This record gives sequence, structure tokens and C-alpha cells, in this order.
Amino acid sequence: MLMQTHEARLAALREELKKRDLDGFVVPISDEHMSEYIGSYAQRLAWLTGFGGSAGAAIVLRDHAAMFVDGRYTIQVRDQVDGKLYDYCQIPQESMGKWLLANAPEGAKIGYDAWLHTRGWVEATSNAVAKKGITLVATEGNPVDSVWQDRPEPSKAQAVVHRDEYAGRSSAEKRSEVADWLKSEGYDAAVISALDSIAWLLNIRGNDVDRTPVALSYVIAHADGTAELFIASEKVTPELEKHLGNAVTIRERTEFEPALAQMKDKTVSIDPDFGVEAIFQALETAGAKPVSERDPVIVPKAVKNEAEQQGHRDAQARDGAALAKFLYWLATEAPKGGETELSAVAALRAFREETGLLKDQSFDTISAAGPHAAIPHYRVDEESNLPIAPGSIFLCDSGGQYLDGTTDITRTVWIGTEDGSAEPTPEHKDRFTRVLKGHIALAMARFPDGTSGGQLDALARQFLWQAGVDYAHGTGHGVGSYLGVHEGPQRIAKATGPQPGTGEPLRAGMILSNEPGYYKGGDYGIRIENLVLTVAQDIPGAEGDYLGFDTLTFVPIDRTLVDTDLLTAEEIGWWNRYHAKTLEILAPQLSGDVLAFVEDACRPL
Amino acid sequence: MLMQTHEARLAALREELKKRDLDGFVVPISDEHMSEYIGSYAQRLAWLTGFGGSAGAAIVLRDHAAMFVDGRYTIQVRDQVDGKLYDYCQIPQESMGKWLLANAPEGAKIGYDAWLHTRGWVEATSNAVAKKGITLVATEGNPVDSVWQDRPEPSKAQAVVHRDEYAGRSSAEKRSEVADWLKSEGYDAAVISALDSIAWLLNIRGNDVDRTPVALSYVIAHADGTAELFIASEKVTPELEKHLGNAVTIRERTEFEPALAQMKDKTVSIDPDFGVEAIFQALETAGAKPVSERDPVIVPKAVKNEAEQQGHRDAQARDGAALAKFLYWLATEAPKGGETELSAVAALRAFREETGLLKDQSFDTISAAGPHAAIPHYRVDEESNLPIAPGSIFLCDSGGQYLDGTTDITRTVWIGTEDGSAEPTPEHKDRFTRVLKGHIALAMARFPDGTSGGQLDALARQFLWQAGVDYAHGTGHGVGSYLGVHEGPQRIAKATGPQPGTGEPLRAGMILSNEPGYYKGGDYGIRIENLVLTVAQDIPGAEGDYLGFDTLTFVPIDRTLVDTDLLTAEEIGWWNRYHAKTLEILAPQLSGDVLAFVEDACRPL
Repeated sequence: MLMQTHEARLAALREELKKRDLDGFVVPISDEHMSEYIGSYAQRLAWLTGFGGSAGAAIVLRDHAAMFVDGRYTIQVRDQVDGKLYDYCQIPQESMGKWLLANAPEGAKIGYDAWLHTRGWVEATSNAVAKKGITLVATEGNPVDSVWQDRPEPSKAQAVVHRDEYAGRSSAEKRSEVADWLKSEGYDAAVISALDSIAWLLNIRGNDVDRTPVALSYVIAHADGTAELFIASEKVTPELEKHLGNAVTIRERTEFEPALAQMKDKTVSIDPDFGVEAIFQALETAGAKPVSERDPVIVPKAVKNEAEQQGHRDAQARDGAALAKFLYWLATEAPKGGETELSAVAALRAFREETGLLKDQSFDTISAAGPHAAIPHYRVDEESNLPIAPGSIFLCDSGGQYLDGTTDITRTVWIGTEDGSAEPTPEHKDRFTRVLKGHIALAMARFPDGTSGGQLDALARQFLWQAGVDYAHGTGHGVGSYLGVHEGPQRIAKATGPQPGTGEPLRAGMILSNEPGYYKGGDYGIRIENLVLTVAQDIPGAEGDYLGFDTLTFVPIDRTLVDTDLLTAEEIGWWNRYHAKTLEILAPQLSGDVLAFVEDACRPL
Repeated sequence: MLMQTHEARLAALREELKKRDLDGFVVPISDEHMSEYIGSYAQRLAWLTGFGGSAGAAIVLRDHAAMFVDGRYTIQVRDQVDGKLYDYCQIPQESMGKWLLANAPEGAKIGYDAWLHTRGWVEATSNAVAKKGITLVATEGNPVDSVWQDRPEPSKAQAVVHRDEYAGRSSAEKRSEVADWLKSEGYDAAVISALDSIAWLLNIRGNDVDRTPVALSYVIAHADGTAELFIASEKVTPELEKHLGNAVTIRERTEFEPALAQMKDKTVSIDPDFGVEAIFQALETAGAKPVSERDPVIVPKAVKNEAEQQGHRDAQARDGAALAKFLYWLATEAPKGGETELSAVAALRAFREETGLLKDQSFDTISAAGPHAAIPHYRVDEESNLPIAPGSIFLCDSGGQYLDGTTDITRTVWIGTEDGSAEPTPEHKDRFTRVLKGHIALAMARFPDGTSGGQLDALARQFLWQAGVDYAHGTGHGVGSYLGVHEGPQRIAKATGPQPGTGEPLRAGMILSNEPGYYKGGDYGIRIENLVLTVAQDIPGAEGDYLGFDTLTFVPIDRTLVDTDLLTAEEIGWWNRYHAKTLEILAPQLSGDVLAFVEDACRPL
């Protein structure tokens, strides 16, 4: 018998906890790799509670339970999760530790799955609850899995070779660099558990996680340049074996934990942000010495080489043409009425698929009409689907996965009426133009080598701040090369914000998004997003090394929403150069009405 | 017999270390309060080595010694300290720990004076040298003092009452606020050892340290609202006793350490940045529980109340008139030739003294002609004194201590020739104007409540960065009210820089300097500095609370150095409003030629 209701599932989990003599259990949205996007096999929180967001956790006690979500999901959690079963708690204001102190009995034993949490989380939460004698206990297996009868199997998709022409460097060369680093730091090996790090290091890709082309696996990289790849054998093709060669031993994924147990006396580097507590525990139990140190692959992966940079330019040009067709479609169809957020998603997907090279979307398209655009992370479904009303603002944030690059672009457009009578309001134009000015300020910024994204963030916000408004998200995130659309370590955002990376120095070769926005709750939203490449600047008379950004994304920005009176001559110069280049890149790929549409959109301001 | 040479002093210290069975000793520039400026009795490093900078340290081993200074002092240390006696090490690149590892013998015992170091320094340095079995040992008394025969006595200056009309709040009210905080946090008492915190909390001032009107003392503030002030009895007048009243017990400064020994079982808050290691050790030895927590006085002291704000405005207006007289003097006398950096210092001091209200300079005037202006922290003396050459740039950074406020202003002016033929170069004007644009961008910035100085810093640098140049100092520091000209906790600077405070949220009432600059080594230097007050902004339609800056300093900026083609209409608007206000404030205080000079300087651009 399947348990159909979330109430029944919660009850079953509580029975399981009783059997295991646990007073509670923590259910995060997480996998064994601390991935941002996780496979369906790991969607335990969604199964248990019905919550569909991308971040959050539940704590289930014997007679009480709570959901913990951040500010993005405070409304959604109330829609999707039964308030009779779960308290709603907003993190970080209401932490799990505080809730446990208030609600768990003195001396309670709270279970957690050590494969789904970092050591940092375990230590912080343990410390927070120690004063009431509450302890966290790592469980054998996951109690949710014991009661989740129809739990999906992990994906069986094959891993594939990512060709050197895209990767720009051979896996052997990358492994040798890691080996040099291990030797210089005095480590015997590194455990690499972040899926995109593994994909980058071995030049392989997979299909196990939506939107991110990675294969579920682990790597142990040794100081002698060899490596072990732990991966389900059904994923391994002869081509992959040949590609990896003799220096990479392929072992079953299930052999990873036993392999850790064999590392007695080894000093092993492991990234505390991606290596889960279970790995630390396994190494310690084995008598190995795990040392918390940043994954050595993270910076080289973020600094794109020539081939990766060219791949991004090619992918962006191709993707830009699909976007141009989409914007033309929107401009001609939407004013008639009858189009919806979902029909726009489908149209955009079709234009991207027409390229013949689309592997996947890089994330679920944010297709947001009217008030939905005011929700920065809105995701449309059949229930939420709104018509795209003539005479309104429409925001679309989307991206594609191509072998040569990952794209991410937001355009916000005015949907006119057939008779052309509806105009954006002065407020629409004021806010759009302030967002644009911030986008341009960041695009044109130059800064000394060593500058971090946290130092640049205010450049993108300053014009909105002058009007007493702001946006509650970061200004820019890193982007992978046919990998994660969100990739660390760099980040442009408020240094006081919740996510790390704002102190990371930007380096030539790093790709970032440039995406300031403005959101008026219940009314409309604006975001203008291009990807940019960090490049060395050649400034006559410069004292020291300076960096700046080359924009990679070329798609017209909607001039209908611009108040040119608010732009300086320099900003208009940027706009005109940007659109001249856009036309130059898109024109060869377009023809007929779409080309005429783009030509018109790209004429000087 | 006095030891006249630094070689003899070093030898004497080594003899002393041998007697004490120590392998080395650390000599910082520091006092028992971790003050920025220290009394002559505490100038141990200058006595030992001849180094005259404001920051640095030496380590003396039995047969080897080194000086540690930061980038500001790498040239100066070579001039002043004998390279045959001391290695030169630049911090933070070459840390004391690393140097000890490389130079001290295995198992060495390195002495330090626990009254001159923070616990953080002791822990970090101990950890850094542990792997070679080297230990840090707190000494009984200071070995330098044992051999420093003519060491000055600490100042005997009297402490004075700082009247409520300037302080804006009574000491009783401030102490009651601290007591409330102690109770709410569960502390029995706070040790307050920062001299400016004591001065602010008790509404007293002193004359024990150059440039900062504080009295050497300690405070223990108790949760019941009472306090003990430990201060040399010769400093205490009947007026002071009356002012402090019954709730403040006055005790000898020498009774402070015995008083700590009486605090068994008390939980005591102490600021780890200002409370020295010896205080932590004394509390721990006594069986008290010291808890590292920010000095509760720091934020209230930084947030100026109405009276303090008005005091600053009054002091700035008065000081601005003195500056105007000085600028007129410079404009008329310097082109004739014959003036020098020292004559300018004397002239400026005289104009400030003419106000009849000057208590002291707020720091040693930076009077910097030509290439000296390229040294941001240049201090003129008889040996370095340069003529102020007609046809050159002159930079003057200075400030006054008045009962109602502390000032800090930098003006950079073009010194013309008598025939008016010499003009600044296009590069002078380009750099000056970029500095000015940054100054204006910060002056006009608005930002959400909660924003820190580290987030705003790039606004002041962006125009220099566009030209590939920068300045190697912070953009803004806090300023006290008849207290330290450098006052925390807030700071506008690179978040990646060495000093703390860039993450501190700015609050309405905080005063900061706004002082971008540009320095061309060996050639010239530029800085434009005003003080600004953080104020709430009233923006129609604002979403949330916004802050901005009101400029407090009103003195003409040299238009000769401005390239108006580089200024936007908004920036010219700021300049014109600023100078109109300057004229309005200064005119009533001036007459004759000086008034005509200021009127001319303040006409619209």
C-alpha cells in the first residue's frame, strides 16, 4: 500500500524513529555531494512534506515537526506544506538549533543522515543544542528511505566523454596539476565529492541530475597523479574507459566508503563545503587524517581557458539567436492576447531546440507575467500559469546547456497592445532605466586585480538606492562550462548577504552573471541579465594589473522601457556599442521578419 | 651612564633577556589600552631601535633581531633603523611567527609583555610557532623598562570634566545603559580599557596622550550601574570627584590588577581588541570568567547625539574659517617662494589658535610639498622639510581638537607663480578630478540601512580605477567628539584590507571622513577630505530605510585643479551647492581680502 498523504508519510516516519529509538530526525534537501540540484532519488523532503522549493529542511520529532525555509519560500511553504503537520520557521532568524532547544525534550537523541550534511552543520547544530543535553546521532541508512516505498532509483544514465576541444585541457593535465598541489601541500590524496568538480577534472559529463550534466560519482585523487573514480558500472561505457586510461581506476560507487576505510595514516584533503560528515567520519574511523581545505579543482574550474571562453562565445551567439526569435514571437503574438507563461516557456524551448545543439535547459525557465515577475525565483506550473496580458511587463530568465557552454539570460519586455496604445508608466521606465544603469556600470567597471565581487556590488545598485529601492538577491554568480549554471567560488553580491563568495578575488577568465533587478511586490518585476567574462584591461598608464568585464550575451534589451533622459552620454555609448555588436552577431543567423525586428531593436538610442 | 646608541640598547636588552633565561622578546608599539597613539613612557620600540613610525614591532633574539612594519613604513624603517642590527620584514607577508620559525632555536622561550598584546595575537603567534616547540612566555614587568634608564614617567596631567552641553548625555545615563546591557547579556561586569571609551562613558577628558584628550585609566562597570575608575590620584581634582558622584568609585590605577583578582566567579565582558592578554590572565587566575565581547561603549560612542552633531558643525565652521585664512595665506605667500612645509604647519596652527578655542591638533599635520605629498602618512620634521615650490602641488591634511568636536580635513592646492604663468599639467587635473568625482559619489551616495563601509568603498575609487590607478589607503574612518580622530567601529575601505570595520553597518549619527586620493611616487599626491555625518534620507516612495551623508566640512576645494569636462551635470551641481554653503558658513567669520578670496573660490563652476 502506498502512503498517499503527507500525514500518513509523517506518521510512518515517526513509527520508524520509534523503532530506531530516536526522538527526532532532520530531513534536508541535499544529496551526498552537497549539490545545488539533486536527483529525484534524493528528494526526501518533497516526498515527506510536499514542499517543492530548492532549499529548506524539516525536523520531525515524535509529536511535533517544523519546516525551515528562507525568505524566498515563506509564501510557497504555506501553500504546499500542511500547517497542521508542520510549524513554519524562517531561516536564518529561526534556526534549527533554537527550535530544537524550544521543542525537543531534555536529552533528546536527534537523528541525521551523515551523507547529507556538512561537518560544519553538524558541529554548529550540536553546539546549539548541547545546553539541553540534546545530541545529534548519525543514523544507519536514512529512516525516510525505510518508509519511502516507491522511492525512485538513482539515475542509470551513462556518463559520457567531454571532448578536449570543449574542455581545452586534457584530464591528465588537470590531474597532474592537482597532484602537484597535493605534493606541495603535503597531502597524500584529495577526496573530490562535488559532482561538477569530478566532471571537470575527468572531462566527463552525465545525465543524473536535472539541468546539470553530471554523473553521480566520487573521486579520490592521489598525489602520484592517479585517481579512483567511484561510479555505478552501468554508467561506464568502453569509450569512457578508454578516455580515462590507465591512471584512473574505475570502481563501483558502493566501494567508495570501503575505500575510505583503507586510507589509514593518509593525510587527505577534503572540502568542508562539499565533503559530507560521513566522509570525515569514515576517514577518521580508518585512522586517516582528513584536513578541511578547499577542493583544488574549484578555482581552475572557475577560470575558463581559451577553449572554454570561445565555447561560451559560440554558445551565447547561438542561444542569442534563439532568444531573438523568441522576443520576435513575443512582440508579435503576445499583444494579441492568449499567450501564457507556459506557452512562452514552450516557445522559447522550441527556439532553443531548433539550434539542434541544445542538451538541456540550464535551469527551469522563469516565465513571469505581471505580478509573478515580482517573485525573483518564480517557477510556473499548470496551477500558477498566468496569461501574458497585453499592456504589461513580462520577465523571462532562462538558459541552455550546450556542449560548448552554459547560458543564462534575463530579458524584461513591455508587452504592447495590438493597436500600440498601451505604454509603460513613468515608474516602469524609471525603475527599468535604473536597473539598466546599474547593469551598465558593472559591465563598464574596471578594478584592480584582487578585487572581489562584494566590492563591486554597489556599482550595480547605486542608481536604485538613489530612489530608495533595491533588489533582494545577488548581482552576479559564476557559471560553468557545460556544467552548473550556478558555480563558485566567485560571487557579486552584498558582502553582508547569506551566500559565500563575495570576498573571493575575481580573476581573468572567470564568468559571472550581471543581473540587477527591481521587484514591486504584487505588481511587476524587472531584471536585465547578461553573462560577462572577467578579462585583463589594457589601460595606458595603468599602475598595476586591472581587470574588467567583456559581455558574452548579445540579445536586444527592450528600448520601450528606457527613459533616455536618465542616461548619461557614456551609458548611451555603451547601449549603442552593445546593440551594434548584437546585430553583428545575430544578423548572420537570422533572416526575414526576425532579422528586421532585431535590426530595429538594435538601432542607436 | 646613559646608553646613547641603539646598538648599546640592544646589547643591554639581550643581557637582560639572558638574566631572565629568555631566548627572545617581542617589542611592539603599544600600551596597556591598545591605543592608536601612545604616551612617551610607552615608546619602547622607538627608544630601542630609533623607529619613528606609528605601527610596527621588533623581535630580539640572543644573536639576531628583526623589525616588522607594514607597507607604509618600508622606506622609513630603512632610514631610521640600523640594518646591521635588525632584519627588515614587511607584514603581513612576513609574519612574526614565520620569522621565529626560521630564526629562533627549537624549543625557544620568547618573552612578551602581556600588558601590550591582545589574546588574539598571543594565540595566533603561539600556534604559528608551536611546531618547532617554541613557546611565548609572559614576562614579569617589561625587560625593556629594566634597561631603559631615562624612561619618561607616565603623564601626570589632570583629568577634566567634559561638560554635558558637549557630551549631550550625562555619564549616569550612559552608565545605566551599559548596566542594562550587562544585565540583559548575563554579565556581572565589563572591563573597559580603551581610553576613549572611558572618556566617553564618564564624560571626562585628559591630557596624557598627544593629540587625543584622554586620561590613562581603567574602568570596571558593574551590572548595578556603579563603576570603578582606576586612575592616578594626582590626576583627580575635587571637581572631577564631584562630577563622578557616589556611583563611581575612584581608585588608584595600580589597584586595577588587584581588583581583577577579586572578581572570582564573576562573568566579565571584555573587548578582545582592546583588553590586553594580562587582563584575561588576571581574571582567569582569579577564577572569574572573562567573555570576549565588544566593548558596549563603542557603538553608542560612534553614533553621535544631537549635541555632539551640533558640536561638530560648530567646530567645523570655526575650523573651516581658520583653513580659509590658511588657504589665502598659501595663495598669496607661497607663489613668492620661501615658504616651507614647516612654515605652513606653523601658519595653519596659528590660524587655528586664533580661534581661541583650539585645545590641540587632532594629529600631526601632514604638510607635504611636491614628492612628499605622494607619501600618504608623511610627517615633516627639520630634516625632511621641503620648500613649497611655486608651480607645484601642495597637500595639507590636518585637524583640530575643540571641546565641541574633532576636525580632520585635507586640501590639495596648486601653488601658482607670482606671474601666474605656471599651470597644473593635464595629468594633475585628470587625477585631481577623478579623486573629486569619487569624493562626490560618496558624498551623494544613498544606501539601505544595514549597508557597511566596505560596500560603499568602490564608489569613491571607480573613476580612478577606470584610469588604472588607485590609492593604497582607506576611504573613510570614524571620528570622535573631542576624542580620537580615528575612531571605530565603522570604516569605509576595501573589504580585503588589513583594518577591521569595513563590515560594520553604518548608522545614522556616525561621522566618517570621505578622503579618496591619488599618489604618484616621487612626484605628487592628491587627497580631498571632508568629514560627513551619516543621516536618514527622506526619499519619496522609498521601500525601507535609507541612509546618506551630510557633509560637515566646508572649505573651498581648489578649482584650478579641476577639469570640468570630466564632470557630469550632477557633479557640477554638487560642487556649486557645496561652495554656496561654504560661503554662507565662512563669510560671517571673515572679512577683507580673505573674504574676497573665499567669495572668488566659491563662485559657481
